[in-house]
Amino acid sequence: MTTSNASLLQRSLAAVWHPCTQMKQHEALPLVPVKRGEGVWLEDFDGKRYLDGVSSWWVNLFGHNHPHIKQAIKAQLDQLEHVILAGFTHEPVVRLSEQLSLLTGLGHSFYASDGASATEIALKMSFHYWRNHGETAKTRFLSLQNGYHGETLGSLSVTDIALFKDTYAPLLREESIALPSPDWRRAEPGESAEQYALRCAGQAEAYIAQHHAGIAAVIVEPLVQCATGMAMYHPVYLQRLRALCDRYQVHLIADEIAVGFGRTGTMFAIEQAGIKPDFICLSKGITGGYLPLSVVQTTQDIYAAFYDDSVTRGFLHSHSYTGNALACSAALATLDIFAQHDVLNSNRRKAGYLNRRLAAWRDLPIRHLRNTGMIWAFDVTPSRPGFQQRFYQAALQRGLLLRPVGNTVYFMPPYIISEEEMDWMLEQARGALEESL
Amino acid sequence: MTTSNASLLQRSLAAVWHPCTQMKQHEALPLVPVKRGEGVWLEDFDGKRYLDGVSSWWVNLFGHNHPHIKQAIKAQLDQLEHVILAGFTHEPVVRLSEQLSLLTGLGHSFYASDGASATEIALKMSFHYWRNHGETAKTRFLSLQNGYHGETLGSLSVTDIALFKDTYAPLLREESIALPSPDWRRAEPGESAEQYALRCAGQAEAYIAQHHAGIAAVIVEPLVQCATGMAMYHPVYLQRLRALCDRYQVHLIADEIAVGFGRTGTMFAIEQAGIKPDFICLSKGITGGYLPLSVVQTTQDIYAAFYDDSVTRGFLHSHSYTGNALACSAALATLDIFAQHDVLNSNRRKAGYLNRRLAAWRDLPIRHLRNTGMIWAFDVTPSRPGFQQRFYQAALQRGLLLRPVGNTVYFMPPYIISEEEMDWMLEQARGALEESL
Repeated sequence: MTTSNASLLQRSLAAVWHPCTQMKQHEALPLVPVKRGEGVWLEDFDGKRYLDGVSSWWVNLFGHNHPHIKQAIKAQLDQLEHVILAGFTHEPVVRLSEQLSLLTGLGHSFYASDGASATEIALKMSFHYWRNHGETAKTRFLSLQNGYHGETLGSLSVTDIALFKDTYAPLLREESIALPSPDWRRAEPGESAEQYALRCAGQAEAYIAQHHAGIAAVIVEPLVQCATGMAMYHPVYLQRLRALCDRYQVHLIADEIAVGFGRTGTMFAIEQAGIKPDFICLSKGITGGYLPLSVVQTTQDIYAAFYDDSVTRGFLHSHSYTGNALACSAALATLDIFAQHDVLNSNRRKAGYLNRRLAAWRDLPIRHLRNTGMIWAFDVTPSRPGFQQRFYQAALQRGLLLRPVGNTVYFMPPYIISEEEMDWMLEQARGALEESL
Repeated sequence: MTTSNASLLQRSLAAVWHPCTQMKQHEALPLVPVKRGEGVWLEDFDGKRYLDGVSSWWVNLFGHNHPHIKQAIKAQLDQLEHVILAGFTHEPVVRLSEQLSLLTGLGHSFYASDGASATEIALKMSFHYWRNHGETAKTRFLSLQNGYHGETLGSLSVTDIALFKDTYAPLLREESIALPSPDWRRAEPGESAEQYALRCAGQAEAYIAQHHAGIAAVIVEPLVQCATGMAMYHPVYLQRLRALCDRYQVHLIADEIAVGFGRTGTMFAIEQAGIKPDFICLSKGITGGYLPLSVVQTTQDIYAAFYDDSVTRGFLHSHSYTGNALACSAALATLDIFAQHDVLNSNRRKAGYLNRRLAAWRDLPIRHLRNTGMIWAFDVTPSRPGFQQRFYQAALQRGLLLRPVGNTVYFMPPYIISEEEMDWMLEQARGALEESL
C-alpha cells in the first residue's frame, strides 16, 4: 500500500488525538504527514520539504537523522535496550549521570521520561526534604506568572498559562502563587531590563519574607519563559532569587527543560547568572530530539536528607522506564557532539549572523524583537484577528514550520542550521508575515 | 577503561539516584550492573546471569535483545526519529493507533511517555468531558483501595499505596475516595471470589448512587492490582462497575498499564469481563520493554465532546515527545509478534505448565497461591522480620531477579520463557524461599 499525504492525514485525523490541538481546526488547517527528516528539514509524502524552525517542539538540537546519535542508539540496541533501574544499573545511565554532573555541578540524578514528570519529582523531593528535616509546614510552591512547567496536575499547579490551566482549576490543590514575571517587555518606559528584573526581585522578596515558612521551593524557567511566548529576562533576577532562597530557606528549582543544552547561549541558562540551583530539571534537548528522557539533578545536601535507615524517608517515586538505556545512549551521543564540536561558539556566530539579518526588519510592524542564544522572538500587532493561524499556514505553505504563540512569532531552529538556511528561513518568515498581518 | 561490576556499582551509587529505593539499603544490598540482556537473561560485567523474573518492572514481553523489535527501531532510525505531533503526523503513530483501536475498540489515541502521565490524561479528559457537557460538579475521581496508578501528584491522588502516598498527602488536592478492593483474599471464609466481588460491587453501588453527581470517573486496574502485591479479583466486579458507571453517568477508566498486552491471559484484561471502558490507559509492555511510551484511548462520544469551534473546549494537553516515532515503531513490532505468533495460546500452555509445577508447592508455608495469565503470586508468613530483603538477596545470589512486595512473592516473567527456564526459576525461588523464611 502506497502512503500518500492525503491518505495518511485522513487516517491520522481519524485515529490520533493530536496534542495541544483543537482537532476541529484541522478541518481547515493542513496536517502534515512527515515521511523522513534530514538536518533541519522535514519531508512529506509528496516530497515537499519543511524547515523545522521550532526544532520539533524545542527538542532537536543537531538536526534530524543525525549519524552519530543514530549510530549510538543502534549500538546500544545490540548491547542492552532496557533493564529495571531499581536494584540494577547499567553503563549508559551511570556515564550520563557523571557527565551531566560535571556540567551542572549537581551530583545526584533521578530519571523520568518527560518534562512534566521531572517537575513533579523536583516538587515532591523538595517537599519531602523539608519534611525529613521536620519542616512540615513547607507545603507550597512559588512560581512565576506566565511560567510553564508541564500539564500533569502537579506540574500544572505551578504553570501559569491560562489556556492550559484554567479549565482544570477545580482539579488543582489550591490557588497557586505566581510572582510577577521579570519579562522585560513589562518594564516601564525608561526602565531597563535589569532595573525591571530588580524591581520584580523586590516583589519576590516581599512575598517570600512574609510567607517562607510555608514555602518549600520556587520554580522558574531561567532566562526565557518559553511557552508563554519567549518572555526573556535579565539574569540578575536569578541572582537575587538565589540569595532570597538562601536567606529564607526555600529551594530554587531551575526548570531548564526547554532552555538547557545550549539553547540560551550557555550550556545551561543558570550559568549566565552564575548561580547553582538546588534542583535542575532537564529534558527535551537532552537526547538531541530522539527519545523521551528527563532527569532531575540535585545536591549532596538534599540527597543526604533522604539517606537513612528508614525506608519512608527515602524517595520511593518510580516509573518503569526510568533510566532507559536507549534514551541514555542518545543523550550521551548528544553530549559527545557538544564535547567534540565547538557548539556554543558556533551558535554564537550563527546568532550574530541572524541578528544582523534581523536588524533589517526594523521597518516591519513588529515589537520587542528579542534574542537569547538560539531563541528569537518578536510580537506582532496584526490588523485583524486570527493572525496565529494565518501566519502558521502562510509559513507552512512556503515550507517553513513556525508556530506563533498568540501574536508572538519565534524562531528556535536546530543548531546545525546554516547561514543559507537562516537566510531562507527569514525570507519565508518575512513573506508569511507580510501576507498575514 | 575496563568496566567491572565493582567499579560500575560504586559509580552508580555515587551518581544515580535509583527509583523506588532507600539508597542507604545499598550499603548491604547488592546493586547489579547489567552489561547485556538476551532472552529472559540479564548478564553482569563478571559474566553472571540473572533470570529476569519480573520482566524488568513488568515491561518486557518477548525477552531482551529481541531481533524483530531491535530491527524495527533500527529501520525507523533510518527513516524518521521524531517530529512534533501538533500539526504534523507520521506513519508509525497512525498505524499504531489504528492497530490498537482494532484491539480495544476505542478509536482515538492520545499519547504520552509514561504510565503516570497516561493516568493524568485520562483524569483530565474525563473531568473536561463533563465540563464541556455543563456538568461542572463532576470534579472527583473514585478508585480502589490498594490501587496504583502512578506517582505524579494527579495520579498519586488515585493511588492507594500508603508507602508511596502518605508522605505526600499534604500536596494532594483532597482526601481521595477508595472503594473496597475486590481482592479475593479478603473474602470471608466460605465466600467465593465471585461472591466477594459482588459484595464489593454492592458497596461501590451504595457509594456511587449517593455521590455520582460529584464523580467524573472511576479508575481501576482490571483483574490484578499489581503494585500492592498482585491482588487478583473476579471479572464480575468489572461487569457490575461498568453497569454502575452507565447507570450513574460516571466514566470507567481501565488502567491496563501493567495488565495489558496479554499479561492476564487475554490481550487486555477487560476482555475477561466482556466490557468496554470509556478510557483505557496503556504503557509498559506496549513497546515490548524497549522504550517509554504510553497512550490513552477513548470513545467517539468522548472525542466528540471536545470537537468544537472553541479552542478551550479542546484537549490542549501536550508533551514534547508525544507519539515519538521510534517508540511507536517498537510498539508496532511488538504487535507484529502478537499477530505472527500465537502468543496468547502459547502463554496459556506455559501457564498450565507452571501451575502444574507449582501444585507441588502446597507443602510450603505459603498462602493464597494465585495465578492470572502470566502472573503468579503467593503470600509468605515468615518467621522473622526482613523477609522481603532476605528473599530478594537469596534469589539474586542464585541468579534470579524477583522483587517481593512485602511478604508477597510474585513471578511475572517475559512470555518467551521456556519450560526449562520455568523449572529453573521455580527451583531457585524455592531454594531462596527456604533460605529466607
